[in-house]
Amino acid sequence: MKNAADRIFEVVRSFNTPVCIGLDPFWDLIPEDIRSSCIANYGDTFDAVGQAILAFNKEIISVTEDLVGIYKPQIAFYEQYGVAGYKAFYDTVSLLKKKGKVVIVDAKRGDIGTTASAYSSAYLGKVVLPSGREIHNCDADFLTVNGYLGKDGIEPFIADVRSYAKGVFVLAKTSNPSSGDIQDLQSDGLAIYMKMAKLIEKLGESNVGDSGYSSVGIVMGTTYPSEAALVRRECPKTLFLVPGYGAQGGKGKDVVKSFDSLGFGAVVNSSRQILYAYRSSVYQGKHFRDAARCATLDMIEDIRTALRSA
Amino acid sequence: MKNAADRIFEVVRSFNTPVCIGLDPFWDLIPEDIRSSCIANYGDTFDAVGQAILAFNKEIISVTEDLVGIYKPQIAFYEQYGVAGYKAFYDTVSLLKKKGKVVIVDAKRGDIGTTASAYSSAYLGKVVLPSGREIHNCDADFLTVNGYLGKDGIEPFIADVRSYAKGVFVLAKTSNPSSGDIQDLQSDGLAIYMKMAKLIEKLGESNVGDSGYSSVGIVMGTTYPSEAALVRRECPKTLFLVPGYGAQGGKGKDVVKSFDSLGFGAVVNSSRQILYAYRSSVYQGKHFRDAARCATLDMIEDIRTALRSA
Repeated sequence: MKNAADRIFEVVRSFNTPVCIGLDPFWDLIPEDIRSSCIANYGDTFDAVGQAILAFNKEIISVTEDLVGIYKPQIAFYEQYGVAGYKAFYDTVSLLKKKGKVVIVDAKRGDIGTTASAYSSAYLGKVVLPSGREIHNCDADFLTVNGYLGKDGIEPFIADVRSYAKGVFVLAKTSNPSSGDIQDLQSDGLAIYMKMAKLIEKLGESNVGDSGYSSVGIVMGTTYPSEAALVRRECPKTLFLVPGYGAQGGKGKDVVKSFDSLGFGAVVNSSRQILYAYRSSVYQGKHFRDAARCATLDMIEDIRTALRSA
Repeated sequence: MKNAADRIFEVVRSFNTPVCIGLDPFWDLIPEDIRSSCIANYGDTFDAVGQAILAFNKEIISVTEDLVGIYKPQIAFYEQYGVAGYKAFYDTVSLLKKKGKVVIVDAKRGDIGTTASAYSSAYLGKVVLPSGREIHNCDADFLTVNGYLGKDGIEPFIADVRSYAKGVFVLAKTSNPSSGDIQDLQSDGLAIYMKMAKLIEKLGESNVGDSGYSSVGIVMGTTYPSEAALVRRECPKTLFLVPGYGAQGGKGKDVVKSFDSLGFGAVVNSSRQILYAYRSSVYQGKHFRDAARCATLDMIEDIRTALRSA
């Protein structure tokens, strides 16, 4: 199977955009008709919520699948609903894989040894049935990982990256206002996020594909373009997952620093600004499907323009 | 409701031990008769695995519940089995709560804003049903949190700590060999783990209970006793969760530095050394239940002796 970074390279080239749509379901923001039909069928239960999430995701995917090749479900929004939420999550990943999409599971898992291996099995690797037969329980392409525990907290994930041609994005510099509390602390003249990025560049060396990028990548928030520019220069083989576009304030001009001179090397995610575009004054009066499609097209164009003038 | 650190103080006092049993299920290590009866009922499925995990946990809990007051399920080992694993996890937490135990969910979650709030709702806070009614979906006492994202990645959890008298343990210094890759880096003369510990001591200030400890605590691995001693001195109100005893090499003499002069301030976890004691040469020939009980008693005694001679 093709290296996971190469699979990203391929869909970015074929769709001509590095845009990734984040599937972050918020019950209150899902259109009323979807919610009420699920309540009618399942009552006042988390099953109703799970079904509404899945139905909403299906609509969003069907109206954007000809525009983008990468989707990123944020597992926390499913996990809070317990078993019903997990069902909606697995069904969403399966649907995306059936459609040939690249799926990034945003779970920011991180632990050590056998525990990290168990997390990796859950999303990237295989899980063992009583008979000893191994199956992919959730067959995602990439998983986000929190590397605060160090190298031996990251390597169990990289083992599955190698075995199953999967990928990870390890947190380096996150998009939130106080990400600097730990990540910007200076040590030997380098910020922690840069130390982390360099550690990842090194750990990913043997997973570099034909695109020149490794399937062991990092997360670099849109909201810190100068930091992204520094890391882009220091870590030329490290693919970036760039969150924070849209609802968190990032714009096309902020993301260009995450790309290489050929306009590759980064995947830019937007969630709420696309999913719930129908609630924004910009797309007022549009059906939620049309609004989501327009918002996706606007984001694609914004980033394309920014990259062209970079 | 009583502050969560006070609830820990109370069970440590009444059971006269700070020992916590980690419920880390490994299919291969669960006794054969439990496994085969679940396969007989559920076939070659993850449901069989989930049922075996739950049955095994019930046995371990029933044979140790008169000895310890704190249990810590490690969610990764359940999560890898998907929906079936989650069911076993929830049922384990419910059983422990019914028995009045303090439950630490070891999930090392970490994210920002609404995503962190969703994780917190999943384990500490309440989740909203379609009708608007809020319920605890998983009513744990404590959750482990990864604070690499900074203050605004931790505060959403602290909001639920306040609202529902819950607690968190944020990773400071973890027990694994390469935890130093990031955590030991020096910044302004302080290691990152110390910066994290001080950040947590400060964030937890307003959650200090009658015991003098805050329900916003940290994780300090047994395997780094000198680091623990330093942090114990600098952060006198911060409760420690101490993993790494037993299978990871920590001993009673290593944990004493995590305690205050009155012998409180830390919870010491052991998982595999207790759960799978029947496979160790030390408890050879014993039934798994008796072996687990003996291993628990041995650990309690080891720590009691170490604290007495400290």
